[in-house]
Amino acid sequence: MRNILIIGAGRSATSLIQYLLDKSEAEELSLTIGDLSIQNAQKLAGDHPNARAIMLDIFNQPERRKAVEAADLVISMLPARFHIEVAKDCLEFGKHMVTASYVSDEMQTLDTKVKSKGLVFMNEIGLDPGIDHMSAMQVIDRIRDNGGKMLLFESFTGGLVAPESDDNLWHYKFTWNPRNVVVAGQGGAAEFIQEGTYKYIPYHRLFRRTEFLNIEGHGRFEGLANRNSLKYRSVYGLEDVLTLYRGTIRRVGFSKAWNMFVQLGMTDDSYTIPDSENLSYRDFVNLFLPYSPTDSVELKLRHNLKIDQDDLMWGKLEELDIFNAKKKIGIKNVTPAQALQKILEEKWTLKPEDKDMIIMYHKFGYELNGEKKQIDSHMVLTGEDQTHTAMAKTVGLPVAMAAIKILNKEITTPGVQRPISKEVYEPILEELKNHGITFKENFTEYLGYNPDNVQGY
Amino acid sequence: MRNILIIGAGRSATSLIQYLLDKSEAEELSLTIGDLSIQNAQKLAGDHPNARAIMLDIFNQPERRKAVEAADLVISMLPARFHIEVAKDCLEFGKHMVTASYVSDEMQTLDTKVKSKGLVFMNEIGLDPGIDHMSAMQVIDRIRDNGGKMLLFESFTGGLVAPESDDNLWHYKFTWNPRNVVVAGQGGAAEFIQEGTYKYIPYHRLFRRTEFLNIEGHGRFEGLANRNSLKYRSVYGLEDVLTLYRGTIRRVGFSKAWNMFVQLGMTDDSYTIPDSENLSYRDFVNLFLPYSPTDSVELKLRHNLKIDQDDLMWGKLEELDIFNAKKKIGIKNVTPAQALQKILEEKWTLKPEDKDMIIMYHKFGYELNGEKKQIDSHMVLTGEDQTHTAMAKTVGLPVAMAAIKILNKEITTPGVQRPISKEVYEPILEELKNHGITFKENFTEYLGYNPDNVQGY
Repeated sequence: MRNILIIGAGRSATSLIQYLLDKSEAEELSLTIGDLSIQNAQKLAGDHPNARAIMLDIFNQPERRKAVEAADLVISMLPARFHIEVAKDCLEFGKHMVTASYVSDEMQTLDTKVKSKGLVFMNEIGLDPGIDHMSAMQVIDRIRDNGGKMLLFESFTGGLVAPESDDNLWHYKFTWNPRNVVVAGQGGAAEFIQEGTYKYIPYHRLFRRTEFLNIEGHGRFEGLANRNSLKYRSVYGLEDVLTLYRGTIRRVGFSKAWNMFVQLGMTDDSYTIPDSENLSYRDFVNLFLPYSPTDSVELKLRHNLKIDQDDLMWGKLEELDIFNAKKKIGIKNVTPAQALQKILEEKWTLKPEDKDMIIMYHKFGYELNGEKKQIDSHMVLTGEDQTHTAMAKTVGLPVAMAAIKILNKEITTPGVQRPISKEVYEPILEELKNHGITFKENFTEYLGYNPDNVQGY
Repeated sequence: MRNILIIGAGRSATSLIQYLLDKSEAEELSLTIGDLSIQNAQKLAGDHPNARAIMLDIFNQPERRKAVEAADLVISMLPARFHIEVAKDCLEFGKHMVTASYVSDEMQTLDTKVKSKGLVFMNEIGLDPGIDHMSAMQVIDRIRDNGGKMLLFESFTGGLVAPESDDNLWHYKFTWNPRNVVVAGQGGAAEFIQEGTYKYIPYHRLFRRTEFLNIEGHGRFEGLANRNSLKYRSVYGLEDVLTLYRGTIRRVGFSKAWNMFVQLGMTDDSYTIPDSENLSYRDFVNLFLPYSPTDSVELKLRHNLKIDQDDLMWGKLEELDIFNAKKKIGIKNVTPAQALQKILEEKWTLKPEDKDMIIMYHKFGYELNGEKKQIDSHMVLTGEDQTHTAMAKTVGLPVAMAAIKILNKEITTPGVQRPISKEVYEPILEELKNHGITFKENFTEYLGYNPDNVQGY
């Protein structure tokens, strides 16, 4: 039996663990599922003969080291900042490691030592980052292998509510960590390159610089820029590409409405509000509006954001019950972002019967034999239920598949890795098809942003 | 003779040093003027018999300690972050110290030791902070001594160009550190309290939430919120005040026009621009606008910021020559804020014959014998020339006066201090009158924001 230690038994681990348990007989796997909450771990282990749940506090060093030492491979599903200590143990005891998180600078510094021990530390192998890398590199490598030259790469991913469960005016529910949604885009200007020109969008304009995406059979969506597209130049070997843009997908109208919160300052996470526990939702809104002895919060907000009488945005605010003078924030020392999250969770939490949906959309522009062409590629996956969500599948399955392939020595390139080589993406993308994760490609003329090479800006 | 060591012989030290030299005979003062540039120090020392210029690198510890040891009192005109090492030397050698900077947390921790040695470390005794503290506390103490209860305190300060030198559409020139002007307001939401309600303004809305100030004989100005008004509650003993607001004064229309730069993202100081040295002003503007193969930078900007054909804001942009495709930024690795500063300095630098102007405006609302009243108080000072600017006078004179009064044991309360007690502000405000720094008070009915106590927001 090969021992896999899975650290972190949260929502993202369900499909991952079920996949590994389903394969445990054939692949001779024994799973140890460690979590700070033994109940969480037990729920995922069930009564499967090849699974064992343990209480694991990763800040308890001896306990953590013991667990790592007993494994052949460690999967860390912890929040990204906690991987590094586990990674150091894996390095010391000579164990492979898999995570779905971005390679941190600290993780990167381990590369030489990981290589010298012949270990594979595979990171960024969830959904985004993960399936985006693999599906993009597959097309990019194919274009290059055929002699094409990449001109444009754009990539968008969105975690959304499935149409059959979409019952609010925002066409959005939290299908993943709500906090990440509330503070998304903060921390600096969004940076990308279009037709060879650098472009920067400050946070407070981000939600007003969207572009539309038409997705076959699913209608129209909107894409808004992620913060740092440019680092993909070196990761994908796209140093000379003219357009490089990564973004997030939302249903049409979401960003323009979300911009109301950004403009008011409600997404700020940098200070706390005095006496926040006793603030009503209405009081909270009023913090961001000028004082008036006579005007209502409603009219001040309409005036402040220039919202017309018949604008649907107003309905979106009302639907959130944000002007309610009786409902309290009820939590001490919250930041505006935390208070907003509280208000949104009341309305945007998935109901037991709700399903989620993942959309990924890539555009590849290239030149081949003097002709400019474009491939658009997209993947849409709807969740089964609240346990096997599209998010849990798309994040967990590639992690699980990579873990087995590393143990089976099918993935062997040592070091701190991302899934951007054929050795990794070919077999995993192939196997993902069995789980409904498939990409549809459309071949078009080059659309780009300046197909006729007009001289301009 | 009493020895005063002045560290930092920049623009802010001219009036300070001239004042001390003028008094040096009568007060038996010997000045040592230390600067990293001996030329700067020599220029200010001139050939005055009681002044000596030295080269002083404050990072050279032995040199710095030797200079401090030889003094009876040290005036630090260094940037605020450099005071602490000097302060530690002053503490060790038992020397008084004076600065015009905010008390840092590090400086505050020295308080007990400074007290136990009977030393005075007087800080925040320039213009703002400084004259604002003194002139405000004088009125607040008077109101309280008469049995009044403070309801409202607002305070605004502005460093502007004098009307006779005001020759651009922005009605603004740099009369102080340009960098501080470009990044003003960044780093978090502006926080204040109005009629008992907390109010927060995010940076990207700051320049659109101004209020007007009418200043007798000088016309209409605008005030915009400073970042942290609330810390003045404890400093001034205004814990129960209903309205507390501190702000910056600009001429009408400045903030609305400055907001264009904020909206575009041009004031961002958190990232650098690739190849910035070769960027034209026009290219720089275009970084913040969507790509288009056919539309001009001008039209994209007009559309992006919704600037009408006949809006004066457009003239303000053109005046800065910001669409020029030939002028280069010419500096490597600049942030947007640094590039913007470069462009602005070309137009907003004071000419040799230009004069500056300082305006300070306070509002004090209070209740006395069941009646609500208000005192408005303001000070306007115009500079003499480019050496004896209003800024150099208002920053330097209070520092110099405090230094002499500490040496003369007229200011004796030991510890890390601010000029908020009568012992300090009464004699200094009195003497400042001889230099044209006078406050005019107007008594009005209480204006506040809700004088009739209407129940509202």
